[in-house]
Amino acid sequence: MPDTQYDVIAIGNAIVDVMAPCSDAKIAELGMNRGGMTLVDEAEAAALYAAMGPAREISGGSAANTLAGLAALGDRCAFIGQVADDQLGAVFAHDIRAGGIDFAVEARAGEPSTARCLIFVSPDGQRTMNTFLGASQFLPAGSIDEGAIAAAKVLYLEGYLWDPAEPRAAMRRAIDAAKAAGRQVAFTLSDGFVIARHGDDFRALIAAGMIDILFANEAELAAMTGESDFEAGVSALAPQVPVLVVTRGEHGAVALAGGERAQVAAEPVAKVVDTTGAGDLFAAGFLHGHVRGWGLASALRTGAIAAAEVIGHYGARTEADLKALVAAKLG
Amino acid sequence: MPDTQYDVIAIGNAIVDVMAPCSDAKIAELGMNRGGMTLVDEAEAAALYAAMGPAREISGGSAANTLAGLAALGDRCAFIGQVADDQLGAVFAHDIRAGGIDFAVEARAGEPSTARCLIFVSPDGQRTMNTFLGASQFLPAGSIDEGAIAAAKVLYLEGYLWDPAEPRAAMRRAIDAAKAAGRQVAFTLSDGFVIARHGDDFRALIAAGMIDILFANEAELAAMTGESDFEAGVSALAPQVPVLVVTRGEHGAVALAGGERAQVAAEPVAKVVDTTGAGDLFAAGFLHGHVRGWGLASALRTGAIAAAEVIGHYGARTEADLKALVAAKLG
Repeated sequence: MPDTQYDVIAIGNAIVDVMAPCSDAKIAELGMNRGGMTLVDEAEAAALYAAMGPAREISGGSAANTLAGLAALGDRCAFIGQVADDQLGAVFAHDIRAGGIDFAVEARAGEPSTARCLIFVSPDGQRTMNTFLGASQFLPAGSIDEGAIAAAKVLYLEGYLWDPAEPRAAMRRAIDAAKAAGRQVAFTLSDGFVIARHGDDFRALIAAGMIDILFANEAELAAMTGESDFEAGVSALAPQVPVLVVTRGEHGAVALAGGERAQVAAEPVAKVVDTTGAGDLFAAGFLHGHVRGWGLASALRTGAIAAAEVIGHYGARTEADLKALVAAKLG
Repeated sequence: MPDTQYDVIAIGNAIVDVMAPCSDAKIAELGMNRGGMTLVDEAEAAALYAAMGPAREISGGSAANTLAGLAALGDRCAFIGQVADDQLGAVFAHDIRAGGIDFAVEARAGEPSTARCLIFVSPDGQRTMNTFLGASQFLPAGSIDEGAIAAAKVLYLEGYLWDPAEPRAAMRRAIDAAKAAGRQVAFTLSDGFVIARHGDDFRALIAAGMIDILFANEAELAAMTGESDFEAGVSALAPQVPVLVVTRGEHGAVALAGGERAQVAAEPVAKVVDTTGAGDLFAAGFLHGHVRGWGLASALRTGAIAAAEVIGHYGARTEADLKALVAAKLG
């Protein structure tokens, strides 16, 4: 196998998060599903924004958050996603490139605008997300640089982006390119609604051996397997994928690969401020260990450390020196 | 005097802050003046932004930060400032209105874009600011609602905005409206460069009795008076204004009014993350006490509490429930 240019190349939504604290009473009053992710159109986004308190804007997007964590850990990364040619698109592109991540997709002219995720953060840190996908859902298949994908150890895909048709076609092309080059494909299931709509696609990809590393949380595991019992779900899914990682929030995470199973407790956090990005950063930490050939236990622990850092402040991009933090904690 | 509609109405720059941590070595390498504020044009702003790490966007602007603090403390506020008709302008307008502050100035079409302040935050929390004033410097005199100004207890003006000609004319009109209605005018000197360019204007306004409350930090006091000794500066300036407030960073602040003098120590802070907005929030706390008729000591203490809150996190807008915080600390 030739040398690789990237450790991880990812395809995901190019989103700027707009975040404000919010009481649970107000979340209920606004008819939002606490803890969930809801797709909204531009008019709904405008109405929710008007109801939102003073906010801050921080680049987000699930796979982009994961890459930002990987780059902070010292991995070589590239991102593929679609912004519009507007100020928030410039913000997203700046932040991803300033993190040392290659990002070559040109901004898209005209409407719609760059994707935004309105995030209402409860006093306990739980986040309730409302996403206007905007330009992000128009990522064209032509944006896929097959050479770059063939030159990356892992292709990481965000399930959220399987929903709109154009990026789905782009991701299928990317999977083919990765597998043709003998690379690994990692996939995060992202949300129950994605599985409800596209679970058959995912099951077919898994059956065809196209997914090497699968990330899920407990709810997604249940949605994928139809098993409400955690262990039954794990037993059903683990034999189908080379590596399965299931995150369980405050209960830590479990990983299974080649008949081996490891688990990790959640890393202690002084105060949970905002859980946005917890799963994304867990994936970053795990993939960091994976591409370095660490065992399951160390990869899981790195995921737990990265997730703990990101939930201690607003925003899904790490603030601390993640590399130093992991080095200090892993010893 | 008729009932008032507002406690404080303010005229200031309408700016979105773009903030990222930065080493002092990088600040020196970029040729920036650590701790200072430098005006930059759009090309310089773009070059600095390209050199900046992953950032977050939080509404700023000196007087707007002060109003956000006052509104959080329960005061009735209105803001006058100019944004462009673009995404960052919408962000600024949303954040100010979401804080409960009236803001009626229409966004300005076309170039330049909404003002941005690129803030490089040193490991010790010191901020180094580079401001692209954009639309903010084109606040027209016609934007001054003289009825609203006559209906506010205090008109608060930001010295930064004295520099560009159009807002200066607007502020002169506002001062006349406030004084004609028997209202108080508060003024913050903002920065040494403003005093270097417009000190004679400020001295003339003071001599004409147009400034009732003057805010300065130590460097601004020295620039205004030509006295490098703090006490000499205070002795020179205090007799000229009904209320003088001088902030001294970690050394607290002093206020003088009607022959009385009070001082306050800086409020302890667990960790200084970002000093952006410290002076603005100090002014908010002081004005809050002032419009309620509190004594100098309580007003100063409220300023110190508000300033301590804002330097404990990124951004110049408070995150904590400032009203509850002040109530708990003042007892």
